[in-house]
Amino acid sequence: MDESALQECLLDLKDLVDSRLESCIEQAIPSHGQVAELAGDVLLAGGKRLRPLLVILAYELVGGCEMEEILPLALAFEMIHTATLVHDDINDNAKTRRGIPTLHERISQEKALIAGDWLFVQGFSLGGIYEERVVTIMADCCALIASAEFKQIDHVMDLATSPDDYLAIVKGKTAGPFSAGCEGAALIAGASPEQREALLRFGMEMGISFQLVDDLLDIRGDERMGKPRGSDVYEGKMTLPLIHALTILHGPKRQRLTEIILGFNDSMFEELIELLIWADSISYTEILIKTHIERARSALDIFADSKAKGALRAISDLVVERFA
Amino acid sequence: MDESALQECLLDLKDLVDSRLESCIEQAIPSHGQVAELAGDVLLAGGKRLRPLLVILAYELVGGCEMEEILPLALAFEMIHTATLVHDDINDNAKTRRGIPTLHERISQEKALIAGDWLFVQGFSLGGIYEERVVTIMADCCALIASAEFKQIDHVMDLATSPDDYLAIVKGKTAGPFSAGCEGAALIAGASPEQREALLRFGMEMGISFQLVDDLLDIRGDERMGKPRGSDVYEGKMTLPLIHALTILHGPKRQRLTEIILGFNDSMFEELIELLIWADSISYTEILIKTHIERARSALDIFADSKAKGALRAISDLVVERFA
Repeated sequence: MDESALQECLLDLKDLVDSRLESCIEQAIPSHGQVAELAGDVLLAGGKRLRPLLVILAYELVGGCEMEEILPLALAFEMIHTATLVHDDINDNAKTRRGIPTLHERISQEKALIAGDWLFVQGFSLGGIYEERVVTIMADCCALIASAEFKQIDHVMDLATSPDDYLAIVKGKTAGPFSAGCEGAALIAGASPEQREALLRFGMEMGISFQLVDDLLDIRGDERMGKPRGSDVYEGKMTLPLIHALTILHGPKRQRLTEIILGFNDSMFEELIELLIWADSISYTEILIKTHIERARSALDIFADSKAKGALRAISDLVVERFA
Repeated sequence: MDESALQECLLDLKDLVDSRLESCIEQAIPSHGQVAELAGDVLLAGGKRLRPLLVILAYELVGGCEMEEILPLALAFEMIHTATLVHDDINDNAKTRRGIPTLHERISQEKALIAGDWLFVQGFSLGGIYEERVVTIMADCCALIASAEFKQIDHVMDLATSPDDYLAIVKGKTAGPFSAGCEGAALIAGASPEQREALLRFGMEMGISFQLVDDLLDIRGDERMGKPRGSDVYEGKMTLPLIHALTILHGPKRQRLTEIILGFNDSMFEELIELLIWADSISYTEILIKTHIERARSALDIFADSKAKGALRAISDLVVERFA
């Protein structure tokens, strides 16, 4: 299958996911009212639908061929992802998300909190139809998101945050859901233990690359993020470029970087980027992205070539291309 | 079975629930860390365990006899209940709960929000092992809690709140979980449609009585509430005694009640109670409590006498006795 046909196939799949998410909200509004409407506003405001696409393609890769069998899990992961965005935005006091004002800004914190809960419930409702092992994967994944969020809070503005701390947070918060989605899909498709393990690793490596790209986009600024450039730095989140630069730099340069991180404002942006370039932290992060994407791709080696495999590779290209 | 033997049986059951909840937290701490600890602080700080007791007894009433089969559902409803308490306390900016400082006061709002999410996840993880119909009952119940909370927020300080609005909120937020727990338990025990319907009604009527008692205790003050007297009035929550008094009173008395509700402080307490007594709103609420408890009891009429039936009746006595 050539590249443009694969892109087409991904777009069709995304359209399917979008329309099903829309149906979920439409069906809920008559009985749940405004909470479903507001949750729908966030859920349907865009988003790459990366998690559901990975779930569906992982299922197909192992030979699953009943779209209706896997769609609930795919939608469940998107619902849960959106729930965490709504609650994160409250905690970060974020003003915009996907280019529109966040729910707590537009309506109220009270209702945003509950709308997030509602999205969690929809996710678990969709995922709760599967066998116990799948439910356990979802639940463990969500519990580890919570635990990673605690760790992230503990490391806000913590200049001693290590790459290991960073990876633990990313594995729990970003890569864990990618990995759990792929693993759950593999189970549902009746994967062998080897296939299941391979897809779990694929998801984890993809998720790490994805977060590293996000870290770079936050610094470079990218309109697709739908939030202001430098949000992570403002919020005191220790992204990998910052952690790397803090390790490499010393003397006055490290001192200045410290000051910038602890008291960041927009006027410091160019200076921050200069310091990160000086420390080679941007290139370092780019190299890591490639390493993890390569690992993700090679996790797929055990599978024979297929449309699903091509599509998963195409997604891994897209992840890298976001920052290229 | 005499009354003291029934009390004994309820206490034993509560001990079992307490010790299992403790085990859940203990098992989670090694992998989830502080989020599990903090969630455990709230979960294990006390509580009547009314929801899990109702779940277990409803199951036994229909002939279920495998404690291990029903315990996960019982614990799930307690976890979800506690999750909603943590998030409600954030939204209400409550200072204490079960006699100890609330999580967001003691730690931070960020962590409290996530600890609430973690409790939701534990609840769904426990409940997710059951057949789809049970999962759907749980999920619908949780979605309706969210929708009722929206309605409650919309009616804060709303003097035009009707008894019908009040009941819709109570049915979603308090009585819904009682009812869903009993209905889920009935399904798991293999109840007939008639038995299932009876238990659903039993839970709903018990839940309404329970909330009405809570409304009275908030006004009367009761150390068992673990929060200051008049919290509902402070928060602008339209409890049934207030709604009733606003309907009955007119002229200067209604004017004064309006002022008290919209600008409540502790010095107005005696005056508020005088107005409620004048309007017969306390007696009216007491009568409604008895009506709903009677309905709950008569929902059990289709079941033959058994230890479980006796215990469910004993719980209904306890609910009424809380305000006696």
